[in-house]
Amino acid sequence: MPSHALKNDRYLRALLKQPVDTTPVWIMRQAGRYLPEYRELRKQAGSFMDLCTNPELACEVTLQPLRRFDLDAAILFSDILTIPDAMGLGLYFAEGEGPRFERPLRSFADVDKLGIPDPELSLSYVTDAVRTIRKALDGSVPLIGFSGSPWTLATYMVEGGTSKDFSKVKGMLYSNPKTLHLLLDKLADSVVLYLNAQIAAGAQSVMVFDTWGGVLSPHVYQEFSLHYMAKIVDGLQREAEGRQVPVTLFTKNGARWADSIAATGCDGIGVDWTTDLKEVVAAVGDKVTLQGNMDPSVLYADGETIRQEVKRVLEDFGEKPTGHVFNLGHGIHQHVNPDHLKVLVDSVHEYGRKT
Amino acid sequence: MPSHALKNDRYLRALLKQPVDTTPVWIMRQAGRYLPEYRELRKQAGSFMDLCTNPELACEVTLQPLRRFDLDAAILFSDILTIPDAMGLGLYFAEGEGPRFERPLRSFADVDKLGIPDPELSLSYVTDAVRTIRKALDGSVPLIGFSGSPWTLATYMVEGGTSKDFSKVKGMLYSNPKTLHLLLDKLADSVVLYLNAQIAAGAQSVMVFDTWGGVLSPHVYQEFSLHYMAKIVDGLQREAEGRQVPVTLFTKNGARWADSIAATGCDGIGVDWTTDLKEVVAAVGDKVTLQGNMDPSVLYADGETIRQEVKRVLEDFGEKPTGHVFNLGHGIHQHVNPDHLKVLVDSVHEYGRKT
Repeated sequence: MPSHALKNDRYLRALLKQPVDTTPVWIMRQAGRYLPEYRELRKQAGSFMDLCTNPELACEVTLQPLRRFDLDAAILFSDILTIPDAMGLGLYFAEGEGPRFERPLRSFADVDKLGIPDPELSLSYVTDAVRTIRKALDGSVPLIGFSGSPWTLATYMVEGGTSKDFSKVKGMLYSNPKTLHLLLDKLADSVVLYLNAQIAAGAQSVMVFDTWGGVLSPHVYQEFSLHYMAKIVDGLQREAEGRQVPVTLFTKNGARWADSIAATGCDGIGVDWTTDLKEVVAAVGDKVTLQGNMDPSVLYADGETIRQEVKRVLEDFGEKPTGHVFNLGHGIHQHVNPDHLKVLVDSVHEYGRKT
Repeated sequence: MPSHALKNDRYLRALLKQPVDTTPVWIMRQAGRYLPEYRELRKQAGSFMDLCTNPELACEVTLQPLRRFDLDAAILFSDILTIPDAMGLGLYFAEGEGPRFERPLRSFADVDKLGIPDPELSLSYVTDAVRTIRKALDGSVPLIGFSGSPWTLATYMVEGGTSKDFSKVKGMLYSNPKTLHLLLDKLADSVVLYLNAQIAAGAQSVMVFDTWGGVLSPHVYQEFSLHYMAKIVDGLQREAEGRQVPVTLFTKNGARWADSIAATGCDGIGVDWTTDLKEVVAAVGDKVTLQGNMDPSVLYADGETIRQEVKRVLEDFGEKPTGHVFNLGHGIHQHVNPDHLKVLVDSVHEYGRKT
């Protein structure tokens, strides 16, 4: 399938540093709880995982925001913890507490016996969803596949769920680094297989979410998070359907390390809102595309404030023919008014116009 | 009281950039739940606020860690939310949920009617505690007084407690900045009075904890957090008992903005563990003293790992005659073995020796 079969390839072009007519925009968690149609479907479907594991429902949820907003990419509706679940840890969602695992990892023996999941066997609900979504998108915009980073997955697997101070996984990191490295290595291998399976199924770009890399000291981040993301970048199938498949790495609170992240050979780097985009541009130059970086809380403000902040982020990136994908610096909050997101998307295209 | 009346003034000397025999060390939350003697006293006393509001008990808790470890400073045992409580918001602690306010701020009218607390009237339990602790310390080490920063206090006052995404206070920030500025201005005035009262009562150094400044975009941090900390630095009584009273500002996740923080005229800047101390040294030069920056989770490791990490932090700061106060990058965790802290304190003094 030649590149022009995509009606809107702005997002892929920006990631590959090819000129664009205007700045592309998509929004982390664009399919989700802030949309009444999502809440409705979720009520009918049952649990969050019931949505993720049903390809038809995952497809419907993925498409919902595209019907409302002029977004330049779709992102697979799924969870970041599918791999640990496929490894047998028993993912469940406790009401109001976020994700939890029935069997968290405690020892070298626990880690040693973990297998690498074959995505076409134990994660086929994901690849089926990718195929279903691609068909439904019908070339309108590209589809982004994704995974959690090895370090981020490991935090949940060792803590048993979300954490405030990461005491268990950091305890392992500092007192038993070999066990953690074994786990991270298995996770990196698993993520490579998983993302390559998503690409084979039709994902046209992939993203690795390192939600918790930014809670590490810089030298520890290099050794326990970035090293394994670099391994993933190296192992990815970077071409499919005669087109390059760009990869974006996003370490929340990690854009200050953008130069090291760029050195992995990734195409894009996610930038949260606590880092000045101007400084990241200065640090990485033209090496990679930057994605971000508005504070999701700006969407609580009125339309005029949202438009001004869009303008500011675009100005921070600077006048260049390409290399910027507009996004929030983190997922959209559940209590945001969807009409406010429409203002954001439309003003990115308006103010980002290059011609 | 002349300066030599202090038996150990290493901490004050380092903050004032005077030469020291070895690197001074104290630990955020050094008086607290990781100590069995604290847990015992807390059980007898009742609630956390029962300890804070009783000067004899607050003094006893303040001194507990000094009996175990060779620390170079004591820090007043108190809470960061005493000012909002004195303003009438009704502080209470819900079991397992952290601090909460009975009457959070919702509107301009709520903020408009807030008064500036007179510390000698409504916060006399704090100044009484300072006087009691100073007497008990008997010149062994200096006493640090402290307050929360205006922005950090405002987050609790508007959210009604701790928050995950700060949606209410950021909603106010972006959609109703005038209300928030009025609140921050009143808080800055209150903090100045409060810290000056602590200094008058005997605090020999003060620290402002900006726990949540790092969740803001850089330009927003400048306007809504740093601006008000600068106002506090300007208003402080910087000399007492014939001695300079150094002030330290600590924005968690904010050391990347150290050059702007140094421009307030503060003496010290707290550095959490996610920033490379070498880079902060390069950014601020000899302008200010740096405090930090070991990851509190290193204390879960064995003694040898702790000693190696102490060495690494000291090497990151570099070979200089003064200008470094060793500390963790955030408060000590409650499940740490106190013996591990002893290894840290002793190895700072051993490896930090200048002569």
